[in-house]
Amino acid sequence: MKKKNKKVNAAILIIGNEILSGRTQDKNVAFIAEWLNSKCGISVNEVRVIPDIEKIIIKNTLDMSKKFNYVFTTGGIGPTHDDITAKSISKAFKLKYEYHKEAFNILEKYYGKIKFNDGRKKMAKMPRGSKLIYNPSSAAPGFMTKNILSLPGVPSILISMIENCKRFLIKGLKTHSKTLNLFTVESNISKQMSIIQKKNNKFVDIGSYPFFRLGKIGVSIVCRSTSLKKLKKVNQDLIKMVKLKKIEILKI
Amino acid sequence: MKKKNKKVNAAILIIGNEILSGRTQDKNVAFIAEWLNSKCGISVNEVRVIPDIEKIIIKNTLDMSKKFNYVFTTGGIGPTHDDITAKSISKAFKLKYEYHKEAFNILEKYYGKIKFNDGRKKMAKMPRGSKLIYNPSSAAPGFMTKNILSLPGVPSILISMIENCKRFLIKGLKTHSKTLNLFTVESNISKQMSIIQKKNNKFVDIGSYPFFRLGKIGVSIVCRSTSLKKLKKVNQDLIKMVKLKKIEILKI
Repeated sequence: MKKKNKKVNAAILIIGNEILSGRTQDKNVAFIAEWLNSKCGISVNEVRVIPDIEKIIIKNTLDMSKKFNYVFTTGGIGPTHDDITAKSISKAFKLKYEYHKEAFNILEKYYGKIKFNDGRKKMAKMPRGSKLIYNPSSAAPGFMTKNILSLPGVPSILISMIENCKRFLIKGLKTHSKTLNLFTVESNISKQMSIIQKKNNKFVDIGSYPFFRLGKIGVSIVCRSTSLKKLKKVNQDLIKMVKLKKIEILKI
Repeated sequence: MKKKNKKVNAAILIIGNEILSGRTQDKNVAFIAEWLNSKCGISVNEVRVIPDIEKIIIKNTLDMSKKFNYVFTTGGIGPTHDDITAKSISKAFKLKYEYHKEAFNILEKYYGKIKFNDGRKKMAKMPRGSKLIYNPSSAAPGFMTKNILSLPGVPSILISMIENCKRFLIKGLKTHSKTLNLFTVESNISKQMSIIQKKNNKFVDIGSYPFFRLGKIGVSIVCRSTSLKKLKKVNQDLIKMVKLKKIEILKI
């Protein structure tokens, strides 16, 4: 994995009617985002969920591919009629949609010649020139086309494949974070937090999130920065403010 | 709630760095999508997750407002510096960002004059002409501006408010669904499913989703349609195919 001393970003494109209908709760966004940041120093800047419709997949793939360093798609790479990710990406970039030799061999070996039917063969078809993302749990590989990495929608399979994406990615600056959990309400600290944020606008993002725990209302203040030094400084400023206001800090 | 005998659609715009970083698992998409379809006959056609950055909120709000009948935003309407949804929507539509009288009165009454500080007052500021979405759990109202309904990010509060969105929405045709859970693998039925889908392309969507249950691999076939009659017909065709193939149906 090459390293770059600057910010690298990514987007996630969830392809699947089942997420849009509310039938299935997406779990891939949180996993991919956390993995990309902690393991690759890549921050996710946008997520979209779209239906299994070719022209919509094409439009969003092209749009996001231009805007972000990497795009991770999930879903639509299985053997059935509604799995149209590979074909749509081929059309988006005007690349031939064809059998990938190595993918074909992997799948033929996995299923055996007799059980290697048309549906299974479909999973070896992808845009010409794609690079394989190996799948240790169910063989059918994902693929990288241009700056787009296509993964399956089933979380357990996706998780098993994610490390195999690493070799295609340039490592960026990791975003570090520090969380302060307080037993208070947001409006009690909003003014002071705003002043601290303004002073550090360029390097540190301060987010504030209410929570309910042990029957009490609280606020998590989450600071994020690529500079550990600046993060510590802001955290100290926040602790100073919290002590002045005699707010209880929750230690977890 | 007025009723329209045609399809009505919506999009969801999740505003929040905490979802993009993977720190927080979104739960609002599945809830809103399921509620909109079952209670209002409105289908969610796109979801986006974006950071708390003004120009990005403005761009996406305008873009989605044009494309869909309704846009639901979640997050960014609290009292802190990173809550910039109301201000950004004001800018997007060139509307004055000002105190909403009724919202101001609701919050002043809820907190009492002495505790009604600047942070809390901020929650009464919104784009001129907005209509209030009442909040039975923590008073601070959401608001509807043009075709955009802005709700908070905390799931329990959002859930308590959702029924109050109804009076602003036109009811569309409900999408019905039928699920068939089979103990088989996708590639075993992909060909036949594809034929049934092609025959019914106009009215019924057939989706296929692998699952793992009771230590066995299976497939959920989910059919969705606004026509109950056509849905039943497709379901019967699928059951016929499944019986021919002697596939076990899982009854839940």
